[in-house]
Order: sequence, then C-alpha cells, then structure tokens
Amino acid sequence: MPGPIQSLERAAAILRLLAGGERRLGLSDVASSLGLAKGTAHGILRTLQQEGFVEQDPASGRYQLGAELLRLGNSYLDVHELRARALVWTDDLARSSGEAAYLGVLHQQGVLIVHHVFRPDDSRQVLEVGAMQPLHSTAMGKVLSAFDPVAHNEVAEGERAALTARTITAAADFETVLDLTRARGWAADLEETWDGVASVAAPVYDRRRMPVGAVGVTGAVERVCDADGIRARLVAAVRDCARAVSRDLGAGRF
Amino acid sequence: MPGPIQSLERAAAILRLLAGGERRLGLSDVASSLGLAKGTAHGILRTLQQEGFVEQDPASGRYQLGAELLRLGNSYLDVHELRARALVWTDDLARSSGEAAYLGVLHQQGVLIVHHVFRPDDSRQVLEVGAMQPLHSTAMGKVLSAFDPVAHNEVAEGERAALTARTITAAADFETVLDLTRARGWAADLEETWDGVASVAAPVYDRRRMPVGAVGVTGAVERVCDADGIRARLVAAVRDCARAVSRDLGAGRF
Repeated sequence: MPGPIQSLERAAAILRLLAGGERRLGLSDVASSLGLAKGTAHGILRTLQQEGFVEQDPASGRYQLGAELLRLGNSYLDVHELRARALVWTDDLARSSGEAAYLGVLHQQGVLIVHHVFRPDDSRQVLEVGAMQPLHSTAMGKVLSAFDPVAHNEVAEGERAALTARTITAAADFETVLDLTRARGWAADLEETWDGVASVAAPVYDRRRMPVGAVGVTGAVERVCDADGIRARLVAAVRDCARAVSRDLGAGRF
Repeated sequence: MPGPIQSLERAAAILRLLAGGERRLGLSDVASSLGLAKGTAHGILRTLQQEGFVEQDPASGRYQLGAELLRLGNSYLDVHELRARALVWTDDLARSSGEAAYLGVLHQQGVLIVHHVFRPDDSRQVLEVGAMQPLHSTAMGKVLSAFDPVAHNEVAEGERAALTARTITAAADFETVLDLTRARGWAADLEETWDGVASVAAPVYDRRRMPVGAVGVTGAVERVCDADGIRARLVAAVRDCARAVSRDLGAGRF
C-alpha cells in the first residue's frame, strides 16, 4: 500500500498553521515554521491559492485561509447525518432550557461544534459552529471522553491545561469524573472551562449503539446551577434531547 | 516559476466533487468522475482522510467531506476583516428591517454568504453561512456584478439559468439591470431566484474604494415589497448599513 502523499501532507500543515496563532503569514514565516525550503512552500501556497484554499493580501503579500474552505465546510455540515437529525431537537432544547444548545463531535484532540442554537433571549451572540472546545474540561468533552474510547485515548495522552482554578487536571481525578459520567449518563462543567459559565451534556448514540456525539446546554452559572449543582430540570432536558436524537439515528430504546 | 502541484490540484478536485451532487461516493465513482486511476485516487483519498479532510463511512466504505474543513472554514471566518466589521451593523440591519440580513463576497462563480443574521421573529431558520448564491439573479450578486469587474467577467461568461419565470437571462437585459444598479447604487431581486422571495442589496467598499462585498436583506415578497417594488425604508436601511460597514473598513465618505 503506498504511503501518504508528501505534498498533500505539507499543504494540510500549511492550512493548519494559517488556522492557528498569527493567521496572516508571509512566505518566509510559513517556510521556516514548517521547515520547508522557500521554493517548496511557495509552490504549495500558489497551488492552494489557485484552488481558493488560501488568499494573499495584495498589500502585504501575506497569506491567509481562503473562501473555498468555508464553502466546503458548509457542504460538510449539509451531509452530516447526526446534525440533520439533531436540528429540531436542539432547537427545542434551547427553547425549553432558555440556554444556548450545542451539538459536538470528537475531532482530533477536541470537541468540534457542529450545531449551535442561540440562547432564545434576543441578546447578541456569536455563532460557534466550527469552533473547537477542550475534551477535558467541557461537559460535551467529558461525555465523549467517558463513552468513546478514541476520545479517551486523546484526552489521556494530551495535556489537560488548567483553564480556570476549577479545571480538573490530575489524571486520577479526571478518571474519577469519567467514572461518575458513565455511572449517571451525563457530565457537567462547573466553571472548569470559563469562569462564570457552566454546562451539562449527554451522549448521542447511533444505530450500532456507538457514541457519535454529545448534546448540551451552556450558560451563566447563576442560571444553570442551584445550590446542588446543575439544575435537575436542565439535566433532564439535555438527556431527553440526547435520547430523542439517538432514537432518530436508529439507536434502540434499551 | 514552477507549475501547480498535480496531486494538490487532484485533491482539490476530489473535495469539490464530494461537495456537490452525490456527496457520498465510493472509490470507483471518485476515480471515474475525475479520470484518475483507482490507485491514484486511493492514495489521495487516504492522505485526505488522514488529514481529516475526508471521512470514510465504515459500513459502506463511501467517502464524504471531513470535519477538518468545518474547523478551517470557521478559522477563515475568524480572520475575515470585512465580516468582523459588519457583525454589529448587519445585526442592526436585521433588527431595523425585521428581515434576515446577509453579507456576501464574490467566490468563484457566485456569492459566498459569510454572515447571516436571522429574521428577528423567533421562527425556525437555517443558517446559510458558507452557502453560495447565483450572481445573476440575487440582489447581492447583481451588486457585485455591477461594481466588481471580476464578478462581471464571471457572470458575463457563465450561464444565467432561469431559476424562476422572472429571472433575467438575456445578456442585453442583464447589462441594463447592471447599468440601473450602478446608477442608483443598489440592486433588487424580485422573485428572480426563489418564487415568493425578494431581496435588496448594496455594495461595501474598502479603504481603496474597491467593492469587497455586498450587504442585503431577504424576505417574503409580501413584506419586502409594496406596489412600487422594494419598500423605500428597506432600501434606505440596506444602503445605510453598507455605508456604515464601508466607513468602518476605511472608505472615505465622498
């Protein structure tokens, strides 16, 4: 079986580079960051530019990601069966909970948001579809880590950064959280990712009973929690939603 | 100067293929659609899969677009200066007009939606960020075709499909529409793209006074139009918004 194609791997590395950190980089920055000869980097960048994956600012000559990625990302969403099945249920979840609802899937070392329903209160909110969240601190991330062995490998091998004073970083403590998540079937994030923000999530299963994603709600800790932690009615709403999406995906009820 | 890199061009063609039409394709379909040997197509698909640009359904073995495209498309939006400047103004436009507001840019042979603010009425709506609209029939497309010479080339050379009974398809008629658009500084779409739907759009300029995008509102023809066509208050709101975004981008007021 032939090995991976080097120019494609390098092109993907350039796109990842432009997606993080500086985001507008000159040819020399790209070449030196990836240890490529300038001529090699230039050849790849020119082809990526011609295909619309990269754009070059005419004034500065710097490169940034191109519009074709947005078009293809939208096509990815269009064909996403889990997302299609979850649209109506997450809409209902946002309405019934009064909080923002999310659908996330495992991608690389994090949770990729594939659907986001705004909190239904007319406030200005930023759409987070396509954004990544950490596996070890968010409710959706803990759900995926607890139920999906691939996610568990990623989070066990990765670094668990202390994002707030409450983030659980020690391996043994984190495994205890995952045991609890498996035992009760849902996970919480009590200001462990962002100060002042809490979330609750539950797993979505497909027809083979494999965990394929997580649904959850996220909001101000004052609204989402009471003295005992996440409000019971929110836990129930999130779990109802996850069960409904799972049934729509063909998972059995038992 | 070296030519484009063939394996990259082929990888881009595979992604475009998966973004249109069937969207879930087997190896033989991909190879035959692009005139590639099966071994060649397989090598590219495997590398694309390894990089997250393509996913393979374990049951059917068919390929579809991968999650990394959504992540990169989101990063593209994050670095999009026009979109960042337009966020607040298009929010205001949707509120003041009571209709859905859009920001679009020229991409390939169409208008790429880079921002979409839902109609503020609590109805269920589908986010269209990343979707493409035709240049020749939509209000944003006409604005770009009238003011951006590159867009004009695309629309003049492309096919102008009759999407409804009202679509303007003849070259001379379409040029008359563009002349009118240039003369009054805005464009309308009166059920020329979708039956029952009308829209109005105006151009956004950058600090070099180049047209870099279009903003507009779209809605049911019964709300958006009166007996004289697009309601004057909507035309004014859209043009106010376009001027505000242009000023934020550094365009002079005169």
